Amino acid sequence: MADISSDQEADLNLEHQQLSSLEESSPRNRRLYSFVGTYGGDTPNLSRVECAKQYLAKQCTTLTFLCCLNSFLDKIPILRCLKEYKIRKYLFGDIIAGITVAIMHIPQGMAYGVLTTLPPVHGLYVSFYPVIIYMIFGTCPHLSIGTFAVISLMTAQAIESVIQPSMNMIDSNQTLSSISSSGSDLLMINERISIATTLAFLVGLVQLILSFLRLGFLTVYLTEPFISGFTTGAAIHVFTSQIPYIFGLKTPRGVNGPFKLPKLYVKLIGILLRDINWISTAIGICSIIALYLAKYLNERFKSKIRIVLPCELILVIIGTVVSHFTKLSTHGVSIVGEIKRGLPLPTMPTFNHVNELISPAITIAAVSLSISISMAKMFSRKHGYKVSANQELLAYGISNVVPSFFQCYPNAGSLSRSVVQEGSGGKTVLIGGFSSIVLGSVIMALTPLFRPLPMACLAAIIIVNLKGLFFQVKDFVFYFQISLLECTLWTMTFVSVLLFDVDIGLYVGVCTSFIINTIRTQKPRFVTLGQVKDTGLYKNIDYFPSACQYPRIKILRFDESLYACNAPFFKRKFYELIGICPVYSPIICCGEKLEENKSEEPIYKYVILDCSPFNYIDTVGVKLLIQVYKDLKKRGITLYLSECRFEVRHILDAMKFYEKTELYIIYVTTHNAVVGAINALNSAPVNNDESNGPTENQV
Amino acid sequence: MADISSDQEADLNLEHQQLSSLEESSPRNRRLYSFVGTYGGDTPNLSRVECAKQYLAKQCTTLTFLCCLNSFLDKIPILRCLKEYKIRKYLFGDIIAGITVAIMHIPQGMAYGVLTTLPPVHGLYVSFYPVIIYMIFGTCPHLSIGTFAVISLMTAQAIESVIQPSMNMIDSNQTLSSISSSGSDLLMINERISIATTLAFLVGLVQLILSFLRLGFLTVYLTEPFISGFTTGAAIHVFTSQIPYIFGLKTPRGVNGPFKLPKLYVKLIGILLRDINWISTAIGICSIIALYLAKYLNERFKSKIRIVLPCELILVIIGTVVSHFTKLSTHGVSIVGEIKRGLPLPTMPTFNHVNELISPAITIAAVSLSISISMAKMFSRKHGYKVSANQELLAYGISNVVPSFFQCYPNAGSLSRSVVQEGSGGKTVLIGGFSSIVLGSVIMALTPLFRPLPMACLAAIIIVNLKGLFFQVKDFVFYFQISLLECTLWTMTFVSVLLFDVDIGLYVGVCTSFIINTIRTQKPRFVTLGQVKDTGLYKNIDYFPSACQYPRIKILRFDESLYACNAPFFKRKFYELIGICPVYSPIICCGEKLEENKSEEPIYKYVILDCSPFNYIDTVGVKLLIQVYKDLKKRGITLYLSECRFEVRHILDAMKFYEKTELYIIYVTTHNAVVGAINALNSAPVNNDESNGPTENQV
Repeated sequence: MADISSDQEADLNLEHQQLSSLEESSPRNRRLYSFVGTYGGDTPNLSRVECAKQYLAKQCTTLTFLCCLNSFLDKIPILRCLKEYKIRKYLFGDIIAGITVAIMHIPQGMAYGVLTTLPPVHGLYVSFYPVIIYMIFGTCPHLSIGTFAVISLMTAQAIESVIQPSMNMIDSNQTLSSISSSGSDLLMINERISIATTLAFLVGLVQLILSFLRLGFLTVYLTEPFISGFTTGAAIHVFTSQIPYIFGLKTPRGVNGPFKLPKLYVKLIGILLRDINWISTAIGICSIIALYLAKYLNERFKSKIRIVLPCELILVIIGTVVSHFTKLSTHGVSIVGEIKRGLPLPTMPTFNHVNELISPAITIAAVSLSISISMAKMFSRKHGYKVSANQELLAYGISNVVPSFFQCYPNAGSLSRSVVQEGSGGKTVLIGGFSSIVLGSVIMALTPLFRPLPMACLAAIIIVNLKGLFFQVKDFVFYFQISLLECTLWTMTFVSVLLFDVDIGLYVGVCTSFIINTIRTQKPRFVTLGQVKDTGLYKNIDYFPSACQYPRIKILRFDESLYACNAPFFKRKFYELIGICPVYSPIICCGEKLEENKSEEPIYKYVILDCSPFNYIDTVGVKLLIQVYKDLKKRGITLYLSECRFEVRHILDAMKFYEKTELYIIYVTTHNAVVGAINALNSAPVNNDESNGPTENQV
Repeated sequence: MADISSDQEADLNLEHQQLSSLEESSPRNRRLYSFVGTYGGDTPNLSRVECAKQYLAKQCTTLTFLCCLNSFLDKIPILRCLKEYKIRKYLFGDIIAGITVAIMHIPQGMAYGVLTTLPPVHGLYVSFYPVIIYMIFGTCPHLSIGTFAVISLMTAQAIESVIQPSMNMIDSNQTLSSISSSGSDLLMINERISIATTLAFLVGLVQLILSFLRLGFLTVYLTEPFISGFTTGAAIHVFTSQIPYIFGLKTPRGVNGPFKLPKLYVKLIGILLRDINWISTAIGICSIIALYLAKYLNERFKSKIRIVLPCELILVIIGTVVSHFTKLSTHGVSIVGEIKRGLPLPTMPTFNHVNELISPAITIAAVSLSISISMAKMFSRKHGYKVSANQELLAYGISNVVPSFFQCYPNAGSLSRSVVQEGSGGKTVLIGGFSSIVLGSVIMALTPLFRPLPMACLAAIIIVNLKGLFFQVKDFVFYFQISLLECTLWTMTFVSVLLFDVDIGLYVGVCTSFIINTIRTQKPRFVTLGQVKDTGLYKNIDYFPSACQYPRIKILRFDESLYACNAPFFKRKFYELIGICPVYSPIICCGEKLEENKSEEPIYKYVILDCSPFNYIDTVGVKLLIQVYKDLKKRGITLYLSECRFEVRHILDAMKFYEKTELYIIYVTTHNAVVGAINALNSAPVNNDESNGPTENQV
């Protein structure tokens, strides 16, 4: 607690002068009614019809042709970007960033394509088409749309739940190309692709509907603790899905229902010892360690090596070369296999299984938009530009719908790529365009080169990229120390994602959010106030033990809005605090007669309730106050209210509170109420042995 | 606005004296840190371990044998009642009340028994056994447990959903006795009874579990608007179920799914014109009118005719006598038929279909306990005794479990009977005992007398008794005028009960409750404050137009706790209020060049945020404040906070707010902050053409 500075000492005179002119209001205006009558104005209570008319009038003024045109063009942000583009300032940075991000897209696209249980080239498509669309309609230059682990996982689960389980086990020892060579397996691959594209279309449609209905505000319910807990739990699911690829095992099938993850681990441990492929394991573990070290060193010495090393691409190249020359596939190591060359032509999604896909589509839409929007908002806060939730939803929607015609599955923003995109010096959304140029070239020409790449390398890329999500566990520690309620939300979401599944975790998390918002209002602090010496301030006597309390006057403050869900608690605690407890006589007495506990006189004559925390009070709250007032009156105690804001005043008026109680029990400030109570005590017949002056609070 | 009384003029001197000694705190203590340092005490921050230890220690002191015994005996409230019973004072009133209520039970029991699609005698059992149990374990003397329309309806629906649909239509033209004479129909009746008793057992079990886990507090979520809307909607379902009996139609079957009620009405109107039985209709309509008139007149002249006329019993007697002598059953009018005589012996419920019955059991348990407890609380408020939610739950639970061994279905408190019970002069729970004596005699001896009673009479009794529930529609008007949020809750519950079903309505209502609690915090008022002349008070300039604002100082107040769900709204409105809007340039200009909107100097130099409404602030809120502070600092504006309570102070400390902003921007009161801002403005280099004194607010 540092000393005040010297110039403030000099202000002492000025302040005294101001204070003496700012005297407390005269007794006439102590009572709320008089105060409002003296100083208040007409309540600007526009009827709802008036408000609606004003709003419509305002909308109509903007219905000129030019305004409509501008409004339409605003939905295509790239036009504004091109209009304001400064070639000298932005172009080089955007090109470099585009190339850097494309280099990350290539291995990640293939890896996440496999995670989706589709041929890896589809991951490359998802890194190409949606990025172009987002460049046209999106507003966040640093957000990197494309493949994302959690969304790929959820897509895979949706496909699994729909597809005919014609094989019980995917044999991950075989290459995907050898699978596709047989007719029925080819059919199954096509079936998966068609389900995935239908899903992407539906996901985009949901997002577009939300955008058109301007429901972007719903994203506020997907709060930071929720997203953190959710993505951390989902990361563990992603990690688990890659373990078979590292160790060269078959992915166990038929594990469903609650506690899916523990059951899966039990099965994996069972088959691990039996079927482990040591070469694949060695490649996987080495890749993980090498990649992790490389990224760590790159991060550590970032300031010296100005550029971001493309560690994943280097791993992919090394892995491909080594596998090619040592012919690893002949040793039972699973490889990526044939990857189709060339960009696909537009084809209609088949829209089979739409009924079964609607529910996963809604869940995937919610998760993908919440992750993308929270990242966009984080960058907007950091760099000072504005992102509009509804425009972003439009962008995400179109970037799922249109690419679904080009064999793409659902996409979202990826944190790791976005951070790289931000750090590589790009400034505008054109980064996406340059990235797609590079990626398009790769897809057109270079994909056959990746044929011998071991799957274990791709799995290593996925696992190492989960590091950021795993580190979110420190959020749990942060919330635990700061805010137990947010910690509860994080934990409930994380645990339900872990124990049940990703979509159930989403719903549990959102419900917990709502329930917590109610629960935290149910048992607030209900404190006794005392007057801080030499001031007109009334503070909690627990934290300000030197604050005085007047005998026979109790000042209370209920630190939350009073409504149905906390009214019973209010009532119980209120009577406890003013010392009125029900007489409890046990059924079987222990021998001696209990004294009659009921005193004739209540301890307090006046109870003042400071209503400043009441941001809201409902009819149940008002009825309770009336009931308490009447009950106290019977006991010879008068209840005063103070510091009532408009929310409280207008419902007291509406419910005719004053007719049921008294007109003059509501004071403007707590101090006014105390003065009123002292005056009333002094004018009442006096008990000569009692003083009404303040006494120190005895702790 | 009445004038102040004369004695208050005389107090003027006293108040001046007090006020001059209660000067504003010195500048040293204007800043929050210094204030807390000077006046604050050690934060009584018991660690959670300490709190737990104290609690356990307190529990252990009550672990003496005598305390445990008393605690056990407290769970059998009738012991206390008998211990404190004053025969002279209570006995006569209790006997009269018991007989009065029994007289209501007889016709209602039979009617609601039929509503449950069971033989009517089971309604009489439900009016007998649970009442005895409640007498032993319940705490509310005025609550009349037994049959209740809504619960009977839900029981019937549960039975329907489980039982084999062996007949498509119940022929309500036949007597239930003629149905039971055929073998397969007898089997079906037995099947229904066994399902109903299993359901009663499960309902009681749910209530007992809630009681043992001391989850009575959960009943707070079943708020007044919810119960009102719910029971009103359910009353319409009950009314609909009785229409076939009035008109002598067959109850349509196979109507399920959403919009059940409208579909049912369509079907009924279809068969009405075809199958209507005029005699039954005449009896029904006449009974309704006669009963309604009788109750109305009885209510009107209550003060003259001291007693409550047993209108329903009189109707039953008249109906029985008329039907017997005119042999109505031969004219196609459906009658009650043979009613078993005698009280049943205990038999185990069969526990078939337990899996299917769990969900209806939970719903019925929730509805029945919420209705019963809300009535108990209403009577306890009115008469000044205490009811304990957990003890009541125990009573309801046992009064469902034990009677399930005696062929009873689930029960609840009934408002109409409870009001009568209250009004007949009874004082203790022994009313139930006397009522059961009367009822037991009827069941043992008199039931065959009711054989010719027309079903239309019972239906009339049910319909007229719904009047109270229908009148709850005026609650809608009340809430509409006073509190839109509660009105929304009422409407959502009512509409979903109507359009879908009673159990879906329950869940929708509870979810709406939670959602509304969050939604109302999302767009609170965000107001500008001004200083009320001659006072140190700062009020909303909309309601106090004469309040002064200082140039270059903006005082704002956000009227709700700041957390994740309203942080985006806060941010948007904040910048709007201080006049910092993003520069919008349309893509296509309309010809003239728009002026550069950005002024060099911001309008305000100091923005003071009054944090008195912040009952809670989470990490998202604190991060937002830090971000806003930094952003304003870049624009040359300083943000001050004032009126921060402990909830805000401790999280600002925990999140190291002061390290990220400044130590001295938090003031104790808004007035302190204004003085601080004025001082800072005065000591800054002055623009000679600006004055820093207050100016009238221009509306």
